[in-house]
Amino acid sequence: MSNRVCISLDAMGGDHGPSTVVPGAAIARERHPEMTFLMFGDEAVVRPLVEAEPRLKGAVEIRHTTVSVAMDDKPSQAVRQGRGKSSMWRAIQAVRDGEAQAAVSAGNTGALMAMSKICLKTMAGIERPAIACLWPTVRGESVVLDVGATIGTDAEHLVEMAVMGSAMARIVLDLERPTVGLLNVGTEEMKGNEAVKEAARLLRETELSNFTYYGFVEGNDLGRGTTDVVVTEGFTGNIALKTAEGTAKQIGSYLKAAMGRTLSAKIGYLFARQAFAALREKMNPSRANGGVFLGLEGIVIKSHGSENAQGFASAVDLAHDMAQHDLMRTIREMLEQTPAVAPA
Amino acid sequence: MSNRVCISLDAMGGDHGPSTVVPGAAIARERHPEMTFLMFGDEAVVRPLVEAEPRLKGAVEIRHTTVSVAMDDKPSQAVRQGRGKSSMWRAIQAVRDGEAQAAVSAGNTGALMAMSKICLKTMAGIERPAIACLWPTVRGESVVLDVGATIGTDAEHLVEMAVMGSAMARIVLDLERPTVGLLNVGTEEMKGNEAVKEAARLLRETELSNFTYYGFVEGNDLGRGTTDVVVTEGFTGNIALKTAEGTAKQIGSYLKAAMGRTLSAKIGYLFARQAFAALREKMNPSRANGGVFLGLEGIVIKSHGSENAQGFASAVDLAHDMAQHDLMRTIREMLEQTPAVAPA
Repeated sequence: MSNRVCISLDAMGGDHGPSTVVPGAAIARERHPEMTFLMFGDEAVVRPLVEAEPRLKGAVEIRHTTVSVAMDDKPSQAVRQGRGKSSMWRAIQAVRDGEAQAAVSAGNTGALMAMSKICLKTMAGIERPAIACLWPTVRGESVVLDVGATIGTDAEHLVEMAVMGSAMARIVLDLERPTVGLLNVGTEEMKGNEAVKEAARLLRETELSNFTYYGFVEGNDLGRGTTDVVVTEGFTGNIALKTAEGTAKQIGSYLKAAMGRTLSAKIGYLFARQAFAALREKMNPSRANGGVFLGLEGIVIKSHGSENAQGFASAVDLAHDMAQHDLMRTIREMLEQTPAVAPA
Repeated sequence: MSNRVCISLDAMGGDHGPSTVVPGAAIARERHPEMTFLMFGDEAVVRPLVEAEPRLKGAVEIRHTTVSVAMDDKPSQAVRQGRGKSSMWRAIQAVRDGEAQAAVSAGNTGALMAMSKICLKTMAGIERPAIACLWPTVRGESVVLDVGATIGTDAEHLVEMAVMGSAMARIVLDLERPTVGLLNVGTEEMKGNEAVKEAARLLRETELSNFTYYGFVEGNDLGRGTTDVVVTEGFTGNIALKTAEGTAKQIGSYLKAAMGRTLSAKIGYLFARQAFAALREKMNPSRANGGVFLGLEGIVIKSHGSENAQGFASAVDLAHDMAQHDLMRTIREMLEQTPAVAPA
């Protein structure tokens, strides 16, 4: 694989469309000057934004599209209306056709997943795709999946996610042999539903050459960073992720209120303002923006729809790293080396 | 019902046993001087502690027991060894026999639930019990259930939990007509698993005289306090609760690190220390300690095993409120008035 990374972008996706996507791409390119982009969207809107960005000079090819997927389109509706011609579909298709190594969209998650499944197809040996995110922990970051691709699971799917999450952790966290935990309501063997119990048995009894199975972890292990990878079913994973985001916001609002309540607290805030700025930066969700679709024949990254350019740039960074270190090949190799889920 | 509330206590439960339970009861009794206790445990240990507590004078009857359930006993093992004679069983039995209006234990949750089910039986019209907790929100508190009683659910069980959670919210939050949300991965009708979709349909189509069905809520609505009651299946609810606790701890540790990093931050901390103390108090999990077992023929409250006396006192306060306002009658009335789940 060449070192030259080309990323396809759905320029029309997200709450702010090209006005976030274009500057976001520019910020990411500053960090990876060899990176180029294929941008799909309304040329009349996209071109002036690209031309106004010196950091994107010579790095962007714009492909004009006339259809955009709306944030509230149902996935089936988006596929019907956007298949083959929407900016979202075309960005994914560029990955399928080998023109780009990864696609990034801030559009509607359901539509992006539906189109990705149809256009790229599921990998051999994988039942269903998953969405992985980077979860900030007191130790650094962990890979957590599935945060909402599929509802319901079984043991094989959980084991597949353990493998795919480990592949992602190897690349993003630079770990040769990541540790994997199964999210559960307790750490004893008898705890949990049938799927996690059976997955635990499979992982204990399989010889694992690429990652270490740690055992069950609980909700509070997520922030602790007990394991490098945490695997769970999509319904629970999505709720855990949003609960953590909500709790962080809630504490932020308590803190703000507490610091404004008395004169002494206000003075204290002034003295400690750099510490607070560092804390805000630490809690800033834009730093870890980007849901990685795993289990498809190609890399697709979902950026939060409401992110600003900095947040979109984080998602592009993630796409760059996955492409440069060939996530697809890493997943395939790790699947082949895991007997419990190795494709026939 | 008389105003006089008697609470039965498993004096041997929890990591610290009587040395937390007895002073915890004393703290709660200062707030509710009419309350009396039946304490089950090793009399040789419990009596000196009770006699050293002037706040408990004349309010405690000690019942000697020789068997204690260990924190790591399996529920089946605890029932086999402790049925009829352990401090935990006897505390529950006192509720069944009408000697106490509610039982509180800081012991092993699985054992407490197993014994409560056997000793008290499930209420008519209720499939399975649930554990409800008070979740701190930016608006105050919400009732969230199930946080771990049962794994897996169906639509009827979710609707039953909506009714039981509303009954608890009426008492604890003093709301005539609480709002209820179903925890889901999105707010659109098509989102989620079959159980939540069907429960939503039942709640929309049933005439509800005691609470208002709000619709789906997401993980970040928990901290926001979007609804007074949030209903979810026990696996997801337990993970959401522990994820929130873990996130709060994680941010607390970031904050502590940030405030100690520079001289200026340290000075700021000194000025703002009262504000930080208020924040710590707000984030203190002991304030909202107590999981309420709902759906049984009697009130049982689970205190965290690692709580201190203040935390145990919060669980006793909760038991007191539930008993004084007759949670059992409120649940029965609300079930009868909800056609979708009214017992035959």
